[in-house]
Amino acid sequence: MPIERIAILGTGLIGASVGLALRAHGYAGTITGWDPTPSELAVAQSTGAIHAIASDPLQAARASQLILLGGPVFTMLEWLDRLAPLLEPGQLVTDVGSVKGALCEHARARYNLVHTAGFLAGHPMAGKEVSGAANADGDLFNGAAWLFTETPDSLSMHPVSRAIADEWRSWPQKFGCRVLDLDPSRHDLLCAWVSHLPQYLSTALSALLEDQFPEKDEVLAIGGRALREMTRLGASPYSMWRDVAHTNTEAVAASLLALEQRLIHLRENLRTPGLREEFEKANHFRSAMTPPKK
Amino acid sequence: MPIERIAILGTGLIGASVGLALRAHGYAGTITGWDPTPSELAVAQSTGAIHAIASDPLQAARASQLILLGGPVFTMLEWLDRLAPLLEPGQLVTDVGSVKGALCEHARARYNLVHTAGFLAGHPMAGKEVSGAANADGDLFNGAAWLFTETPDSLSMHPVSRAIADEWRSWPQKFGCRVLDLDPSRHDLLCAWVSHLPQYLSTALSALLEDQFPEKDEVLAIGGRALREMTRLGASPYSMWRDVAHTNTEAVAASLLALEQRLIHLRENLRTPGLREEFEKANHFRSAMTPPKK
Repeated sequence: MPIERIAILGTGLIGASVGLALRAHGYAGTITGWDPTPSELAVAQSTGAIHAIASDPLQAARASQLILLGGPVFTMLEWLDRLAPLLEPGQLVTDVGSVKGALCEHARARYNLVHTAGFLAGHPMAGKEVSGAANADGDLFNGAAWLFTETPDSLSMHPVSRAIADEWRSWPQKFGCRVLDLDPSRHDLLCAWVSHLPQYLSTALSALLEDQFPEKDEVLAIGGRALREMTRLGASPYSMWRDVAHTNTEAVAASLLALEQRLIHLRENLRTPGLREEFEKANHFRSAMTPPKK
Repeated sequence: MPIERIAILGTGLIGASVGLALRAHGYAGTITGWDPTPSELAVAQSTGAIHAIASDPLQAARASQLILLGGPVFTMLEWLDRLAPLLEPGQLVTDVGSVKGALCEHARARYNLVHTAGFLAGHPMAGKEVSGAANADGDLFNGAAWLFTETPDSLSMHPVSRAIADEWRSWPQKFGCRVLDLDPSRHDLLCAWVSHLPQYLSTALSALLEDQFPEKDEVLAIGGRALREMTRLGASPYSMWRDVAHTNTEAVAASLLALEQRLIHLRENLRTPGLREEFEKANHFRSAMTPPKK
């Protein structure tokens, strides 16, 4: 029973990239899209990320076997609310959000019951600092991890929803992803360290440089790869990261605090052998990292 | 009077890259190399970064019109000491070090006098997280800034040394560099922000992750571009950055302290509108940054 009707609600960077990836890897069904920004929808359709623009997202969701939620996390939480009473057993909702605990918690008592649709939370570990369907890329997920956070609830969803979930789990592998399963709270903890901390750090560094050098011609003329790379994520949109900050606050705050303390330690040891230890540990961390697949 | 005899003392990543860039851009003279690590020298010769290995670096320096110092800053300071009494008016010493105040100060009373060789401090804003002649690249400087820090002393060096200095200043342009002049102290301040801070920050982040996740399979399986990029400089060698920490301590410590305070501010505002301001400032900083030339 291959999936034939998909609705993507939120056709920005990630949503539209999923549409492009599906079609690039042989998806033979239809993809209907909706987005609060009409221009995003028009771009998503013109690039082929979606076949059709939904006139009514709720109707499009009802007519689909798989509903994929894109956009900021709070928007996804709203969709979970709005869709729950409209969908039926045998349908499946999934998402591509950066935080999983809040979504899985919100889906409890609304999904994965005998009389409801299923919900399977997912998270591709890929993105760009720029947003929007115009920056979407069907190859974006190649070489990345795609995380799923099954719960006791999701594992007991309606068997037809489950069949769709199992088929959906096979698509990221076709996109070139490593598919991994994590507990939602473990997901949020790990992502605080490997994704959210790097993001807020790059934002803080970029904002600091903006304040420090309001006339930044000289800084930009001099800066090389290190500056470009460490501030690249400074271009990321507030709209996405506000919701991460609100829904994974504790883990993000803990990682930021740990980094603050680490910087103090390094600063106080600029002229002591403690600096060597920091470089040795950092070298060791990096030596375990294999080059990216692409 | 084109330069015909160059000695490169320190044929690691940057020194060997200069040799390769010179030859790739039509340098018709000879390049003699020396390095404390014999294997580095052998690699530099085999890749063509140098024509010949010096059996005695002091003799090679005496026989050259231009002596380029590579390696860590403290090693350069030692070379300035050792070479000063051996060289003659009409010769020129230059360098590729990351800190300029300490080198220019050290050159005072030893160079740029009527009876001494000239010294012109330089700094290509390019590098890699990996070291050694095997990683050298004749295209490394293409699109980067090459900074010179002339001083009243260097501007009054012996006229033959000056002619060599003026010719040397034309080479980075051939390599594809933007050539910029800065005061040494301004150089060190700016580089603390755009180069040294990103380096120590990446080291601190990598060391923190190493401590936090001694078994790091999961973290590395999940991490994407953000993690790879923000920790890339964590692979940089202590030997180079110890000397920067010792010779630009004040400016580096000030930039680290400012970042610590910025991270505290961001952490305390994860759920307030203050977070929006940080993203707006960061977005503004990045919007002024043009894409890299290569």
